[in-house]
Amino acid sequence: MVIAVDAMGGDHAPEAVVTGALRSAAQVEGEIVLVGAGERVEALLPGGSSRPRNIRVVDAPEIIGMGEDPGRAVRAKPDSSLSVCVNLLRDGEADAAVSAGNSGAFMFLAQVRLRKLPGLQRSAIAVLLPGSDKPRILLDAGANTDCKPLHLAQFGLMGSVYCEYALGRRDPKVALLSIGEEPGKGDELTRAAYELLRAAPLNFVGNVDGDKVLNADVDVIVCDGFAGNVVLKVAEGTGDWLMSLLRRELRAGLRSRLGALLLLPGLRRIQAATDYATYGGALLLGVRGICVVSHGRSSPRAIENAILVAQQAVRGGVVEHLAEGLGRMAADEEALSEPEPQPV
Amino acid sequence: MVIAVDAMGGDHAPEAVVTGALRSAAQVEGEIVLVGAGERVEALLPGGSSRPRNIRVVDAPEIIGMGEDPGRAVRAKPDSSLSVCVNLLRDGEADAAVSAGNSGAFMFLAQVRLRKLPGLQRSAIAVLLPGSDKPRILLDAGANTDCKPLHLAQFGLMGSVYCEYALGRRDPKVALLSIGEEPGKGDELTRAAYELLRAAPLNFVGNVDGDKVLNADVDVIVCDGFAGNVVLKVAEGTGDWLMSLLRRELRAGLRSRLGALLLLPGLRRIQAATDYATYGGALLLGVRGICVVSHGRSSPRAIENAILVAQQAVRGGVVEHLAEGLGRMAADEEALSEPEPQPV
Repeated sequence: MVIAVDAMGGDHAPEAVVTGALRSAAQVEGEIVLVGAGERVEALLPGGSSRPRNIRVVDAPEIIGMGEDPGRAVRAKPDSSLSVCVNLLRDGEADAAVSAGNSGAFMFLAQVRLRKLPGLQRSAIAVLLPGSDKPRILLDAGANTDCKPLHLAQFGLMGSVYCEYALGRRDPKVALLSIGEEPGKGDELTRAAYELLRAAPLNFVGNVDGDKVLNADVDVIVCDGFAGNVVLKVAEGTGDWLMSLLRRELRAGLRSRLGALLLLPGLRRIQAATDYATYGGALLLGVRGICVVSHGRSSPRAIENAILVAQQAVRGGVVEHLAEGLGRMAADEEALSEPEPQPV
Repeated sequence: MVIAVDAMGGDHAPEAVVTGALRSAAQVEGEIVLVGAGERVEALLPGGSSRPRNIRVVDAPEIIGMGEDPGRAVRAKPDSSLSVCVNLLRDGEADAAVSAGNSGAFMFLAQVRLRKLPGLQRSAIAVLLPGSDKPRILLDAGANTDCKPLHLAQFGLMGSVYCEYALGRRDPKVALLSIGEEPGKGDELTRAAYELLRAAPLNFVGNVDGDKVLNADVDVIVCDGFAGNVVLKVAEGTGDWLMSLLRRELRAGLRSRLGALLLLPGLRRIQAATDYATYGGALLLGVRGICVVSHGRSSPRAIENAILVAQQAVRGGVVEHLAEGLGRMAADEEALSEPEPQPV
């Protein structure tokens, strides 16, 4: 297994990326290829026997900045670290690519350079959300606005396959984000998607409302990219707001400061449970290759986890299982749309 | 001013409703009409001189239950407390109706019995959300799925008028919920609505992302009812989840328990800041009459605040200003669609 890591991507690159890769090296069964400005990256690696034997550097002289227009930057910089990462994947020289760089450019590259799985209409971004008993997958998290019902049904299948083969959960529970739990609730899109999901070869458990996204006993939550992005950002904004209220109260006088001091370990545990860095990054599902899109402000720990997420997906054969699942779904649909054999 | 209150609506009716109405009585400049099972309501009111002189009881023998199908219940129970409340509004005998009962039935009644304002395509539910510096209005919070761009533009106008005349904020800042802040970001609906909002006679400040819903310096946030419901419920679910993590930590051993004790006043302040009861209820905007839809589990304080919200809206002349604003918007559109006069 080869995991290509964009050493120049992210707000704290290349230092945070190289540190994260070093931390992950002992846990990775294959090779980590750090792609970026060769000399700068080499300088950050330890020399001699303390250098992990499964880390290699591939030189890529250009960098796509975080704020650059994806399409323009990709065309203008053919030798960017991000481009070279995706090319390694395209050419079969790597199994996964990880980047905390310009996510728009990463997705653009993945979608134009890597072939889409046969039968799939749209690739999707899957994120791991924290939850009351276990993390859950939400997709699409923002790649596709204006979806059709079939897109959502295929997202459900992809989430289910990912959950089963990368996270090792048997028969994952797939739910549809809607407003109202009963079948028939929601908007035109979700009502039609409900029927397709019910007929699809997966464990569809029905609608979930927004208040259940973090609290319901489900493994996969399906929605279009507009709603998915809203869910992610509202959850993040609400968390930030509550934590800011809490911080203000913790500083409001001697009594509160003492209380805060006593609660510090607990507050740290809450922060860890809600920290994006625990979850490593988002996955672009539906292309030939594993692409892990990490947060721009990724810390070494976030990069380490992103590399481990990539390894899990490669090891589980997620791409192969996705292709197989999509094929099965298409066959089911064909069978459904064929007329019943008539007695002769 | 007359405010009709559904005494039988809500999980804790009639006790919580009557108590809330009693608490509000001294703050209400007009009359409160408690509509419900006459004897039960009378029995909850104090007798003699301690009974507020501006509370009157109107008998309505039937009750629509919280779980009943709205359309069916409304037809089967013509003398329900909810029906009688809306009839008082329709007949000009009340200026506002407040109910914590079956919200579907309330909206159904309001939409079929009260005339829609001229030029308006769809009425909408507006809710007050807490926020970093001030409460903000979100609409539509769930009445309309599958909206058209003009619906969203009219929601923006209604939110702006409500904010100006009921909350007393000059020139309210109206934002559009989207994914991405730049113009042109979002889905088909929001991109088209952006242009209409920019041209509308209101202070449109552009897109807001989900993480800014509670944190941005805005007064009104516009979205379709699917997204609005998702925003409300995700915020609620995230808050519940974080508070449950916090509660668990506060009980995790002696040290934490002591810390929790010291922090109690601060935690209570946070709870108050995030409590739905502070905000009294949602408003159905766009019909002739003020309708305040309160939470089913309304406490006396929530009912008290709902009655005060209704009073604010009546006192500010919200219905009249809405009619005027919608007329102005329609005139602007006509002017825009007329061909430029040609030189002769």
